[in-house]
Amino acid sequence: MLLKYFYDDALAQASYMVGCQKTGEAAIVDPSRNIDAYFDTAEKEGLTITKVLETHIHADFVSGSRELAERASATIYYSLEGEGDSSAEYSFDSSLSTHGVRDGDEVKIGNVTFNVLHTPGHTPEHVSYLLTDGAASDHPLGMFTGDFIFVGDVGRPDLLEKAAGVKDSASKGAKDMFHSIEKAKKMDPTLQIWPGHGAGSACGKSLGSIPTTTLGYEINTNPAFQFDNVNSFSDFLLDEQPVPPAYFAIMKKVNKYGAPLLRDQRTPLRYGSNVKKIKQVLDSDTTVVDSRSKESFAQSHIPGTLNIAYDSSFTNWIGSLISYDKPLFFIAEPEHFPQIVEAMNAIGLDTTEGFFTPSIVESFEKEHGTDQYDVISPETAMNMQKNGDLQILDVREDHEFEAEHVKDAKHMVLNHLPEKGDQLADHTMALYCGSGARSAIATSILKSKGYDVKNIKGGFMRWKKEELPTES
Amino acid sequence: MLLKYFYDDALAQASYMVGCQKTGEAAIVDPSRNIDAYFDTAEKEGLTITKVLETHIHADFVSGSRELAERASATIYYSLEGEGDSSAEYSFDSSLSTHGVRDGDEVKIGNVTFNVLHTPGHTPEHVSYLLTDGAASDHPLGMFTGDFIFVGDVGRPDLLEKAAGVKDSASKGAKDMFHSIEKAKKMDPTLQIWPGHGAGSACGKSLGSIPTTTLGYEINTNPAFQFDNVNSFSDFLLDEQPVPPAYFAIMKKVNKYGAPLLRDQRTPLRYGSNVKKIKQVLDSDTTVVDSRSKESFAQSHIPGTLNIAYDSSFTNWIGSLISYDKPLFFIAEPEHFPQIVEAMNAIGLDTTEGFFTPSIVESFEKEHGTDQYDVISPETAMNMQKNGDLQILDVREDHEFEAEHVKDAKHMVLNHLPEKGDQLADHTMALYCGSGARSAIATSILKSKGYDVKNIKGGFMRWKKEELPTES
Amino acid sequence: MLLKYFYDDALAQASYMVGCQKTGEAAIVDPSRNIDAYFDTAEKEGLTITKVLETHIHADFVSGSRELAERASATIYYSLEGEGDSSAEYSFDSSLSTHGVRDGDEVKIGNVTFNVLHTPGHTPEHVSYLLTDGAASDHPLGMFTGDFIFVGDVGRPDLLEKAAGVKDSASKGAKDMFHSIEKAKKMDPTLQIWPGHGAGSACGKSLGSIPTTTLGYEINTNPAFQFDNVNSFSDFLLDEQPVPPAYFAIMKKVNKYGAPLLRDQRTPLRYGSNVKKIKQVLDSDTTVVDSRSKESFAQSHIPGTLNIAYDSSFTNWIGSLISYDKPLFFIAEPEHFPQIVEAMNAIGLDTTEGFFTPSIVESFEKEHGTDQYDVISPETAMNMQKNGDLQILDVREDHEFEAEHVKDAKHMVLNHLPEKGDQLADHTMALYCGSGARSAIATSILKSKGYDVKNIKGGFMRWKKEELPTES
Amino acid sequence: MLLKYFYDDALAQASYMVGCQKTGEAAIVDPSRNIDAYFDTAEKEGLTITKVLETHIHADFVSGSRELAERASATIYYSLEGEGDSSAEYSFDSSLSTHGVRDGDEVKIGNVTFNVLHTPGHTPEHVSYLLTDGAASDHPLGMFTGDFIFVGDVGRPDLLEKAAGVKDSASKGAKDMFHSIEKAKKMDPTLQIWPGHGAGSACGKSLGSIPTTTLGYEINTNPAFQFDNVNSFSDFLLDEQPVPPAYFAIMKKVNKYGAPLLRDQRTPLRYGSNVKKIKQVLDSDTTVVDSRSKESFAQSHIPGTLNIAYDSSFTNWIGSLISYDKPLFFIAEPEHFPQIVEAMNAIGLDTTEGFFTPSIVESFEKEHGTDQYDVISPETAMNMQKNGDLQILDVREDHEFEAEHVKDAKHMVLNHLPEKGDQLADHTMALYCGSGARSAIATSILKSKGYDVKNIKGGFMRWKKEELPTES
Repeated sequence: MLLKYFYDDALAQASYMVGCQKTGEAAIVDPSRNIDAYFDTAEKEGLTITKVLETHIHADFVSGSRELAERASATIYYSLEGEGDSSAEYSFDSSLSTHGVRDGDEVKIGNVTFNVLHTPGHTPEHVSYLLTDGAASDHPLGMFTGDFIFVGDVGRPDLLEKAAGVKDSASKGAKDMFHSIEKAKKMDPTLQIWPGHGAGSACGKSLGSIPTTTLGYEINTNPAFQFDNVNSFSDFLLDEQPVPPAYFAIMKKVNKYGAPLLRDQRTPLRYGSNVKKIKQVLDSDTTVVDSRSKESFAQSHIPGTLNIAYDSSFTNWIGSLISYDKPLFFIAEPEHFPQIVEAMNAIGLDTTEGFFTPSIVESFEKEHGTDQYDVISPETAMNMQKNGDLQILDVREDHEFEAEHVKDAKHMVLNHLPEKGDQLADHTMALYCGSGARSAIATSILKSKGYDVKNIKGGFMRWKKEELPTES
Repeated sequence: MLLKYFYDDALAQASYMVGCQKTGEAAIVDPSRNIDAYFDTAEKEGLTITKVLETHIHADFVSGSRELAERASATIYYSLEGEGDSSAEYSFDSSLSTHGVRDGDEVKIGNVTFNVLHTPGHTPEHVSYLLTDGAASDHPLGMFTGDFIFVGDVGRPDLLEKAAGVKDSASKGAKDMFHSIEKAKKMDPTLQIWPGHGAGSACGKSLGSIPTTTLGYEINTNPAFQFDNVNSFSDFLLDEQPVPPAYFAIMKKVNKYGAPLLRDQRTPLRYGSNVKKIKQVLDSDTTVVDSRSKESFAQSHIPGTLNIAYDSSFTNWIGSLISYDKPLFFIAEPEHFPQIVEAMNAIGLDTTEGFFTPSIVESFEKEHGTDQYDVISPETAMNMQKNGDLQILDVREDHEFEAEHVKDAKHMVLNHLPEKGDQLADHTMALYCGSGARSAIATSILKSKGYDVKNIKGGFMRWKKEELPTES
Repeated sequence: MLLKYFYDDALAQASYMVGCQKTGEAAIVDPSRNIDAYFDTAEKEGLTITKVLETHIHADFVSGSRELAERASATIYYSLEGEGDSSAEYSFDSSLSTHGVRDGDEVKIGNVTFNVLHTPGHTPEHVSYLLTDGAASDHPLGMFTGDFIFVGDVGRPDLLEKAAGVKDSASKGAKDMFHSIEKAKKMDPTLQIWPGHGAGSACGKSLGSIPTTTLGYEINTNPAFQFDNVNSFSDFLLDEQPVPPAYFAIMKKVNKYGAPLLRDQRTPLRYGSNVKKIKQVLDSDTTVVDSRSKESFAQSHIPGTLNIAYDSSFTNWIGSLISYDKPLFFIAEPEHFPQIVEAMNAIGLDTTEGFFTPSIVESFEKEHGTDQYDVISPETAMNMQKNGDLQILDVREDHEFEAEHVKDAKHMVLNHLPEKGDQLADHTMALYCGSGARSAIATSILKSKGYDVKNIKGGFMRWKKEELPTES
Repeated sequence: MLLKYFYDDALAQASYMVGCQKTGEAAIVDPSRNIDAYFDTAEKEGLTITKVLETHIHADFVSGSRELAERASATIYYSLEGEGDSSAEYSFDSSLSTHGVRDGDEVKIGNVTFNVLHTPGHTPEHVSYLLTDGAASDHPLGMFTGDFIFVGDVGRPDLLEKAAGVKDSASKGAKDMFHSIEKAKKMDPTLQIWPGHGAGSACGKSLGSIPTTTLGYEINTNPAFQFDNVNSFSDFLLDEQPVPPAYFAIMKKVNKYGAPLLRDQRTPLRYGSNVKKIKQVLDSDTTVVDSRSKESFAQSHIPGTLNIAYDSSFTNWIGSLISYDKPLFFIAEPEHFPQIVEAMNAIGLDTTEGFFTPSIVESFEKEHGTDQYDVISPETAMNMQKNGDLQILDVREDHEFEAEHVKDAKHMVLNHLPEKGDQLADHTMALYCGSGARSAIATSILKSKGYDVKNIKGGFMRWKKEELPTES
């Protein structure tokens, strides 16, 4: 048997290839839409991808199952559990080769067996796959747990309700999760656990940065395994879950049906420093994301553009803040284009039209002038607020604000700014977050809405370090 | 003024950027469809591309003019000469910003002037652009001659007739060319000449491998400049022109209207070693080009595939031998995909659907078996022909065959094999060309048509070296 | 805690990064010499590498410990066990920051603890590291087992004797290994196991292609865990271990002292198709490895060069067949240079001087002529042997030959050809191996020694398929 | 004949390959030290590099002649003119294959002839090479003019005096140049001119951005060709030549003897974000160049580092401001390492030891704190100077300052800051240049010397735009 781990850093998303060298077949568990990496490995190992195994309808990334069905002629294995619950039912195009599975079924490639276990909680249809390498032994080796068990956490049960609007599904999910965990506790504790996500995913609340674990270790140490009462477990699980990114609702729909094939997408192209085009684009109902550093954006930017710097949180913030209904352009370094296209594919933002290069900012400046904003020290911000020259605004998560915040600060979570930002009462504001990264994005959003905003250097971290006044 | 040379090795095609640093504008002369290189340079130099200058309706590559009109918001300058001759008239989409020019007109960017000269011969509408850097002097610096003057050659006047079927246009073009040359002879001989093609292009018959020249040098040394009689010139010019590649006819049509935008193309994707898919593709009316080396193909290949190795002549042979009407797949190394897509864009083969990786040959072999052909020595071939075991076939150009060939060899030019190969009388053949490269392609074509064929190692070059019998 | 897996495919060698986000420190377990990958990850995660943990003196790759000590200012943790046995003692340069550890010691970075366990068998000093993430729990999470426990195998105890010439160490090692396994059987079976090697390493005999396992799974399924008698275990373990590659002896020496720093190496440079230089190089006592495909080499090669194709076994065969005492040149594609340099660094072949490009073969041919060899079908080979025209030679491993081989074939293992090839009695031979890959290398070795050799297409696999006569 | 143009953007340096397809030989005119590009082209064209032609002892880049002599086994052709003048004599190592040439000599490769012309002025030994393609004609095609004729300019004659300290050589060189131009005026005006440099080189004062020209165009338009009196020409030529970069003196020495071979250099390696190492490096007599953007450096940098941003002027400023006698480290993005190594090779800065990655700034900050400087608006600067809070310092070239400058500004040219910066009278300063780029470098130099400095945003350009007071 061959087992390979794949990990998409931008989405903290894990997928797996299991192959049987004897028959030359391979299966992919929970593939992402960027499937070239699977081909690379399969070709190197002399394997052919013939099967895709889905643990559930993913909410946080576009599944590569349809892409593999088309391009690898693979059969998709998906859960039939949760039937009757429309949110839990796949509706694959009938032209695809698919195969529904239920608890107790088994899927085979060569000597290798996947046993299906229904493990609802994160979603009603969620299944896990127990892996046995028949060539070596009858003992199962481990389990692909998708968004059931993570390292140190379990899948959150509230996404369907919060992101897809399925009423009361959060508390039902929490109860399901309790029973799924009870079931897991009775299994062989020496099993390996291969989870669907790592640290940084919004699918769990405290994911560790460890790729794999064992069931025994989770039984002993995972907080979610330490309950014997369904209600207290439920309270625990539903507490303090972060706001799900806006795009989760869209992902659910896309993955139910199988995502559009990449070959049918328009190719996003390069528009250089074409000032006429960006003018025209900004005048129409189109989003332009400037991916340069927050320092460069602060110093000079094209009015109406949003600033989401190309760093490790880029994909996340794009998914959380950018409309899926409008055409989308980026200002980006040419060497980042291919990765940005991959990232947009991964979250299904298929409206990406093209790229301008950073030199457009200078070209634009010569013709039309650009805009800038000030980055001020915490002390300056405090004094200006005292003098009534501006209002300080906290854009962190609710629980961060509640724990402690700048004295007299107002509060609106970054995720809500695109929709509710217009409702802010003050015109002149200085923004802060934890370290200055989120507030830079927020500043660009509020600027594009016409506010007069500044960013506070170093965020709440520096505010505290300089011992300026806070409150809870 | 800024002047930059661009050169597409695959097509031996030259294009040029002229910029004015004062106003920050740039113009591209005879752009190719892969325009990212122009953006790269423009951005580095702080310039914005605002104009495209076309010398004529190109037959050998897809012009990037429409792509630049869209993506750089540039205006296209094109010839209005040759009016009334439908083969010579542009028909750009009215949504594009275009500007027709005639002999005597001038085009300006900042301090730089392009003077339009009508220089028919290669085509009726053909113009050249005389360049003057007003910042430095009133003296013109040089001339963009497109397919009028090359280094050591002039444009061939027979393409319209041979490739686009415009009757009698070859002899008319030859006469035009004579007069255009007469005109050039009267110009300042110290002018630089920036031609549209270098060695290896099928647009002239003996192009040198020198990027730029001077008018004086061409007057002194270019064979086409040494005539004072239109008829002897015409005879000279129309003699021994090679067969134009099949795709030239298509390019003419595409370039009259402006090529489809790249963003509207399907993205060719990777299909790994998906045996089911290649089976299905080969069973439908689809071309599959195997770009592996001729040695690998000879040893094992999938029946029905054609072998055009990925080397410096790849694009040329694809354009000459592959149908523009059928979907097209490649078997290719993943690291070659991007260059192959660029090359297909350059010649407008927009039906490219995808790529299989070379490991598919081994996978296919396991399931269905593969095919192979023998590579035999000249001596073996000679003996087998003597014994009546096979017929030797020469696939070189007419003039090569006429000069000297293998004793008792039959002859069919490689370019004619796709269409006329079925008419060959013999079933069992050994093929040769100059060195073994063209005959490898030919072998794959005839194999796909059901013949029993072998390739002769080293071609005619080795045949001669081994002093085997030939005839003229 | 953060845990990252690193895997060098060429050497089937695993290394690990463990980090503590709280203090920003990271440790590397069993680093390879190509340390840039560790820097990449550390920088992305905001960590600083401060410690290196060695499980034992490696025989199959150059440890990156000294490189990290210099370039990351890290402290090396190494085993003090096995004292008194010179083969088991490290002798690090005193300028390095090092720290010896013994069974029972613990090493800490931030919240993370490594507990040292003496686990001899593969080598006397071998230790394993039990990992506990203090932030999550007091329960250990897993164990870095180096060359003690692999997935489905254990480290071979005979390398010291066979590769480093330490007398009787194989049987002593087997006994140690038995006791180390006994010890492991008593530990928590839910521990994860992170081994030092995967499939394809010569450090074990039947390594699976699975990255990680659990102790419980190994206890249940690993053949080496199924013994309760030390002698039968010892017999089992010492049986059928393959011949270790020649370079293992050198690695042991290098790793005892810490490898030379990469910055002090000569940079291997490109010599293009410099025919004069390769002539001069071949006339001196220098190795030239031609990394082109076996098909290309068979068809034309420069006399005196060896053919080891650049594929997944390249590094292995270089280490097994090439002298560490002579300067080394490659004929290779320019895009492979950087990977070849990395691979040579990894196995300490620091005598690499430079690269010629494949076009040198053609250039050489024009000036001096080249050589070729025939690839013949099994049937042809059989007939020629029957007629007394040649002798068939098997170059597979002993156990393969013993199991079954071509009727009347002679035998010499590929690994022995460089040294003992001169002693072969026959001048004219046809070689075979399993599939034709090893025999292609062998053919090039014997050709360079002056024999008249051919390669048999498809090897023993095809011989069998065609049902030609064999014997055992 | 084949002719290829090569251009090193960083140094604005042109080199040329001339090949004869008949004999397969190629010669390189004025090669740079990064010779892989020549190998690439030669291999693609099936040519072998056999000769190197030097026009003169270069002052602005390391010649690749010795590298090609070693790695391509090429013979170096160099000028014997200027004998007796030690500054003009080559002293190649006797092991190299070299061939001295004089005015009137010819060098041949196949059908191609280079005629040697002595064209002193830039240096006493300077020769040009007249190129004739014998296969096409007896007419020469053009001339490689090195640092004699540029497009719109001629070589400066003052470098030997200013950079290498050869007394009175500037005025002698100016006279030589006059006579060389007189000689050129008598030659065929239809010759092409292939110069040694383009725009941006410090080898001429007003180089155009046009790759090639004709002799006739230069006779008509080049200001240096418009004199008929040697004295007025001399005055014209020696006027307003910019200060030569510091490294020119070193280049002259290196190129007289042939540069050290690259294979003997230490390989610069990556040191990640190793804070201990950078501390130790900064405490010893070592230069650390931070290549991040000026915005990032301003916001946070490691005390003692210099800021030269990695952009198109990077190599130039390194050569002008960095000591050749001290070890050198960079803070740079990993993807820039290879280009930085190439650039340092090109200017012979062979003391480059290694690279830290940008994340070291953050790591350093956590342990030791970092430094920052303010970027202020012109108006703020003006007001602070008025209030006596700081002194404004102009760091532009003399002729820029003399033309017009900020009212009451002091002046020291950037090039002089490393040596004379300590002598500045004021402690607190705000710096400006043309646009803010040079003053950012200057700010980092003065900070490292202990001054309290700010940078003025937008430089003199913005100062003028805001109509603040200036003087001449």
